[in-house]
Amino acid sequence: MEGLATRYARVRRQTETLVEPLSAEDCQVQSMPDASPAKWHLAHTSWFFETFVLGGQPFDPSFRFLYNSYYEAIGERQPRAARGLLSRPSLDEVRRYRRSVDDRMLERLGAGLDASTEALVVLGLAHEEQHQELILTDIKHLLGTHPLRPLYRRDEHAESGRGAAPLTFVPQPGGIVTIGHPGPERGGQPFAFDNESPRHQVLLQPHALASRLVTAGEYLAFVRDGGYRRPELWLSDGWGHVRAEGWRGPLYWQFGEGEGAGDAGDAAAVSIYTLGGERPLDPAEPVVHVSYYEADAYSRWAGARLPSEAEWEAVAASAPLSGNLLGSGALHPRAAPLGGPAVGQLFGDAWEWTSSAYSPYPGFRPAAGALGEYNGKFMCNQYVLRGGSCATSRTHIRRTYRNFFQPEKRWQFTGIRLARDPQ
Amino acid sequence: MEGLATRYARVRRQTETLVEPLSAEDCQVQSMPDASPAKWHLAHTSWFFETFVLGGQPFDPSFRFLYNSYYEAIGERQPRAARGLLSRPSLDEVRRYRRSVDDRMLERLGAGLDASTEALVVLGLAHEEQHQELILTDIKHLLGTHPLRPLYRRDEHAESGRGAAPLTFVPQPGGIVTIGHPGPERGGQPFAFDNESPRHQVLLQPHALASRLVTAGEYLAFVRDGGYRRPELWLSDGWGHVRAEGWRGPLYWQFGEGEGAGDAGDAAAVSIYTLGGERPLDPAEPVVHVSYYEADAYSRWAGARLPSEAEWEAVAASAPLSGNLLGSGALHPRAAPLGGPAVGQLFGDAWEWTSSAYSPYPGFRPAAGALGEYNGKFMCNQYVLRGGSCATSRTHIRRTYRNFFQPEKRWQFTGIRLARDPQ
Amino acid sequence: MEGLATRYARVRRQTETLVEPLSAEDCQVQSMPDASPAKWHLAHTSWFFETFVLGGQPFDPSFRFLYNSYYEAIGERQPRAARGLLSRPSLDEVRRYRRSVDDRMLERLGAGLDASTEALVVLGLAHEEQHQELILTDIKHLLGTHPLRPLYRRDEHAESGRGAAPLTFVPQPGGIVTIGHPGPERGGQPFAFDNESPRHQVLLQPHALASRLVTAGEYLAFVRDGGYRRPELWLSDGWGHVRAEGWRGPLYWQFGEGEGAGDAGDAAAVSIYTLGGERPLDPAEPVVHVSYYEADAYSRWAGARLPSEAEWEAVAASAPLSGNLLGSGALHPRAAPLGGPAVGQLFGDAWEWTSSAYSPYPGFRPAAGALGEYNGKFMCNQYVLRGGSCATSRTHIRRTYRNFFQPEKRWQFTGIRLARDPQ
Amino acid sequence: MEGLATRYARVRRQTETLVEPLSAEDCQVQSMPDASPAKWHLAHTSWFFETFVLGGQPFDPSFRFLYNSYYEAIGERQPRAARGLLSRPSLDEVRRYRRSVDDRMLERLGAGLDASTEALVVLGLAHEEQHQELILTDIKHLLGTHPLRPLYRRDEHAESGRGAAPLTFVPQPGGIVTIGHPGPERGGQPFAFDNESPRHQVLLQPHALASRLVTAGEYLAFVRDGGYRRPELWLSDGWGHVRAEGWRGPLYWQFGEGEGAGDAGDAAAVSIYTLGGERPLDPAEPVVHVSYYEADAYSRWAGARLPSEAEWEAVAASAPLSGNLLGSGALHPRAAPLGGPAVGQLFGDAWEWTSSAYSPYPGFRPAAGALGEYNGKFMCNQYVLRGGSCATSRTHIRRTYRNFFQPEKRWQFTGIRLARDPQ
Repeated sequence: MEGLATRYARVRRQTETLVEPLSAEDCQVQSMPDASPAKWHLAHTSWFFETFVLGGQPFDPSFRFLYNSYYEAIGERQPRAARGLLSRPSLDEVRRYRRSVDDRMLERLGAGLDASTEALVVLGLAHEEQHQELILTDIKHLLGTHPLRPLYRRDEHAESGRGAAPLTFVPQPGGIVTIGHPGPERGGQPFAFDNESPRHQVLLQPHALASRLVTAGEYLAFVRDGGYRRPELWLSDGWGHVRAEGWRGPLYWQFGEGEGAGDAGDAAAVSIYTLGGERPLDPAEPVVHVSYYEADAYSRWAGARLPSEAEWEAVAASAPLSGNLLGSGALHPRAAPLGGPAVGQLFGDAWEWTSSAYSPYPGFRPAAGALGEYNGKFMCNQYVLRGGSCATSRTHIRRTYRNFFQPEKRWQFTGIRLARDPQ
Repeated sequence: MEGLATRYARVRRQTETLVEPLSAEDCQVQSMPDASPAKWHLAHTSWFFETFVLGGQPFDPSFRFLYNSYYEAIGERQPRAARGLLSRPSLDEVRRYRRSVDDRMLERLGAGLDASTEALVVLGLAHEEQHQELILTDIKHLLGTHPLRPLYRRDEHAESGRGAAPLTFVPQPGGIVTIGHPGPERGGQPFAFDNESPRHQVLLQPHALASRLVTAGEYLAFVRDGGYRRPELWLSDGWGHVRAEGWRGPLYWQFGEGEGAGDAGDAAAVSIYTLGGERPLDPAEPVVHVSYYEADAYSRWAGARLPSEAEWEAVAASAPLSGNLLGSGALHPRAAPLGGPAVGQLFGDAWEWTSSAYSPYPGFRPAAGALGEYNGKFMCNQYVLRGGSCATSRTHIRRTYRNFFQPEKRWQFTGIRLARDPQ
Repeated sequence: MEGLATRYARVRRQTETLVEPLSAEDCQVQSMPDASPAKWHLAHTSWFFETFVLGGQPFDPSFRFLYNSYYEAIGERQPRAARGLLSRPSLDEVRRYRRSVDDRMLERLGAGLDASTEALVVLGLAHEEQHQELILTDIKHLLGTHPLRPLYRRDEHAESGRGAAPLTFVPQPGGIVTIGHPGPERGGQPFAFDNESPRHQVLLQPHALASRLVTAGEYLAFVRDGGYRRPELWLSDGWGHVRAEGWRGPLYWQFGEGEGAGDAGDAAAVSIYTLGGERPLDPAEPVVHVSYYEADAYSRWAGARLPSEAEWEAVAASAPLSGNLLGSGALHPRAAPLGGPAVGQLFGDAWEWTSSAYSPYPGFRPAAGALGEYNGKFMCNQYVLRGGSCATSRTHIRRTYRNFFQPEKRWQFTGIRLARDPQ
Repeated sequence: MEGLATRYARVRRQTETLVEPLSAEDCQVQSMPDASPAKWHLAHTSWFFETFVLGGQPFDPSFRFLYNSYYEAIGERQPRAARGLLSRPSLDEVRRYRRSVDDRMLERLGAGLDASTEALVVLGLAHEEQHQELILTDIKHLLGTHPLRPLYRRDEHAESGRGAAPLTFVPQPGGIVTIGHPGPERGGQPFAFDNESPRHQVLLQPHALASRLVTAGEYLAFVRDGGYRRPELWLSDGWGHVRAEGWRGPLYWQFGEGEGAGDAGDAAAVSIYTLGGERPLDPAEPVVHVSYYEADAYSRWAGARLPSEAEWEAVAASAPLSGNLLGSGALHPRAAPLGGPAVGQLFGDAWEWTSSAYSPYPGFRPAAGALGEYNGKFMCNQYVLRGGSCATSRTHIRRTYRNFFQPEKRWQFTGIRLARDPQ
């Protein structure tokens, strides 16, 4: 197994690899309040180790203010929406900061750590892997909303050339299942966030789970059927967003010129923006960059529903933990392979919106101190997503992993898996 | 048992009784987008019967637009935030509208109804009872935020003179419980909204439930302990509201002049606004007009948590369905009686915020047609409240009843019951 | 000449006559922050006399807060945008307030006043006449934006049946002219507001002034020529309003259904809302309810410009002070009479936007004390209007009168007179 | 006299010199909608020459969209508030763009130009000089609002060590004066913007003009006298800004910690941010970065008023055109020299707010075509400023020059000169 110092070096290097295609200017800009500049991600992840592991004399005392994200216990901070205004320190200075933190961390790692410090390092690496995914989705938003749609990196998309494998619904028996992570107190368990604990029992009803993610082609049929013009398909708040934001399709979809304003789907051609640039939509690829509202409306249109997180985890518990994750280099969801498992595509490709509001598990206790702010204080008005995406590290994702976003967000790699009650 | 025509007449009359203390001007004003003018409530509840039961020639065709609340299937409507601009029709005209609808309804009721129409009438009466509660909370907001704090009606509050009964935590065993309403298809069942179905099993962990609601005096101790100045007690979104809105205590609390700006609780005297006017806070009365965020922060401060709706219903299933409801005439929560049941105050006094996000029950199906918009489309970013309040009709509340509001709302009679995990 | 007590009684009665067609509900509502409820106007005008003339024991001490408009020197006040929330005091109570103030005022007037108190009474009456005009424009906004467009009062519009008299440009010589009011210090002068003083000399260039107001028919030609789609005709801020507000024509114009979204003028029929209800546009009537931006854009399209206030006053100095003012009862502008004076329609019909930003005259001094807030503090980002409208009292208007509004406002009776430089 | 090609090369080089202290990241950021990134200024000024002088094949067709500022006649453009999102093209690419434009321009200039093209080049250079000033004020805003207040460049401020020369009011006779620029049609005249024409006569009243700008020390006395807490000193809109923005002094002033929240002036020490960093306020230096509202309130407090632009120009007409302009390198206003002219500091140091709303001169005609949008369409809700600042080129400023900004803006080098009516 990979030693902690090796792992530290690998994860930190991975972050830097992701920003390699970017200029200092690209790394500077914040395209919306939800996103952060890549430079800020580079600094904040280092600040995390410096603040929670290293302590002592800081590299620069002002960084305590500049690179704190949301830890009230640490003190005041640069307002979230103003992260893009920090032209100083420069990217070079932030890189020096990273190197300085790395030197001190590797020295510390070499000297051996007590168990609680080791746990903090492992947490810091998980934290950094989360920011790796955000670096990709944030830069995708910056470039994908730029009027010229510039590339993040060159990419050759080979269309699958085949239709999608037929979507089937695989029956699940229901009954009492056990979900969640045993938690750190059970000794010897690998890392998990506090929000995945305690492990506990849940009672499920019989249901069926879709064999793969919803494809872009299937979603286009929903669009063509007036999906974005029929309020009866939507949650009330979701319909409000459709109207207020003028949604006509998923984020990064572009409809052809010829089509009528009200009828997005009549266009012969739909193009999408990927990190490799603009290209035609591939009907077989999973739909991605949809909000919970869109996932929910689609499922209603399809006569189905979204699965709960317990339904998802019950099946994922015995599935192989592999898929189109960050390591594949695709940086975009891929069509489900033919001849996959009964319920496939559970990991990678796209985070799957569940019907579960993000709430504490029974008996949940946040971590002590400032790090207790990591997860618990966000358990409100968000929905749980499962399974990781094409921008998630293989070493990051778990079967018990609970990601969460507000239901209107679309800039993450978020997709749709359907479930169905017995007919 | 009360016949349907009798019930119809009683419910409709009750609505009019509630607006009796109000002038036409009081009935005209909308104090915020969440609230509606009393005149609008009077008209909308009649529109409901006219649209969904009577059909045929409308009293006035323009009312289809003016008094539609949110039914997309019925068509365009007066924007919600602009209901207070409708100085025409006059209150007198709306009263004529009510009488006309009542005449037609009673004629119809006298002639006998088929089962599905009868179900619609029953739904319309439940709907009207909901608006009765809104009439009271909306007018309380109008008068309670008026610079002169005028009365709704004269009221003599007799302070209990005794301290509150000690709050105890009553252990509950956990296990599989069955909650929810069997639903209309089981024939012979009394009415319930679609969101209470299907009846289904839930697995509970062992826990303990508080014997009564949290009192104003207990809540004041939280305020005095810096409750509104300590971010670690709050959900992140809740803390955002505290800061943005300048919350220092529950809605309608006024702190004395002498106190420092930052320390609301040092004041010897706190006064509150009730429908009977301003008066000193009674420490033994239940705290009311708190948001979910405040209920959650208080419970964290108290080393407890909020109960889930299933935990609540499991206990309420065997509790007597009585309490300080609308019929008591108090229009304000009352101190818990001494020597009550182990877990008391379950019904009436104040709606109890639960930890349960408002989601569909497993297998939920909304009603067909426009009335399917009644509940289902709001199942997002809201929390379930249980038990009814001092403004809820006895004929309206049920053990399976699910009320729901966004977590920042405070103008309803919303209070706090605590729960606790095993220590 | 009319004695002061007689004048007082007449002006006060006039105000009440204007609200006679209105219900208490109509008088309650504030349709936008710029407008005030009629009830508030009734109370505020009485508060003005009570505060600045009567002094002593107030009718109700809370009115000092409730009915102060903007006098910082008097103290805190009900926020402007929240005037419509004051359902208490009732309209009846406000009427009692008016009677009480009237009784005390008439007693005081009977006993004889010193010169400075008399000046305050005269000011108070001018103030009340301003609010009479606001009562009409505010209620027009309330009813004219109501989805049913109800009437203020029944009205028979007899279309002129003739085309408008041809518009001619009447040459004016330029040179030094003297404008403004001599001011109170010159003894024996009739009343004027402080902003009309001092009388002073201005140097004018030769120019020409239009013989009448721009008609609705002429303005419709501008609309038909794409006036609202051509940015080159507009001030930059004005074009911003066209886009943000979706302006397609003057306030209260309704275009027929058949027309394309982009081409308002293709419609055969345009209807307008007047205080007598909706009716077809009369091409010969003056266009009204246009902003400064629209007046300016129209004049550019017409190859002309707006006159300065000095150019206007130089001609108005010798014109008869008569026209379609409040006393005519028309409450709407009328087509210019044939065979009128060379430069006609100077008074009444519609306030005329001038090109003059609202600035102090050279040597301007505001009145002392709180009443110095009446005019001076608003001398910024507004434009001067001249001549009065169909809602202005004959006893109110003067040749030196300076009205002023922000350039985007449209709910007053505001119209257009053109001027031209020598070709 | 400097040839046009030489001048072109000098002005263009000057722009680049100004951004030399800045990194690509500094040049990328837009700190508020009013400001633009330095990179955008570099590109836009080149776009101006390419679009209005060179024509033909563009360097990059997308730049027509990206770098158009507000020319509706040229077409759609990047939204003003989103200029900071353009991380591509890079600063290097924009520099290549500049070089390419320069090569083509110098070739064109070498070949000789017709008169109308020459006029466009001269306009383009004036345009570029305006953007030079904006580069400095925009970068000052970015760095001066950064939490660390980083430097633009190192700077040694030598405090004058002396008090300010006494401020005297120099009487001016009034009478007819001629102001404005003869305009291009009078042949042989040096360049001026269209808004400075036509030259015309204005009638002035006798008055007196202050001998120098108001100093920071004098302004501090206003602050200490409660200037920001006394509504009677302010225009109504200005007071609204004081309250809404929490203004306690000019932009870039920092008050010491010890002072009470309400009493900024009690602090012994006030520091200011300059392009050379933070340093103590020098009482003798001119106050700068005040809005029109503050200039107006100060003048009222001082028993004076602001001069009109005609009053200013009448005196400036015979004053030497020199002062602390961009060429001095100070980049900050300097204390008025002792023994200067009767009315000194007319040019440089700080733009002087006048009491004149920005309006067209009598007979004004905007330039033909797209360039007619340069000045005319902004003649609304702005005030005229005169005299140039420490960031204005000597070759840019003129006695007839009319600068203009909205009355609430503070990020330009804007200061105060007083005027007074005869006592």
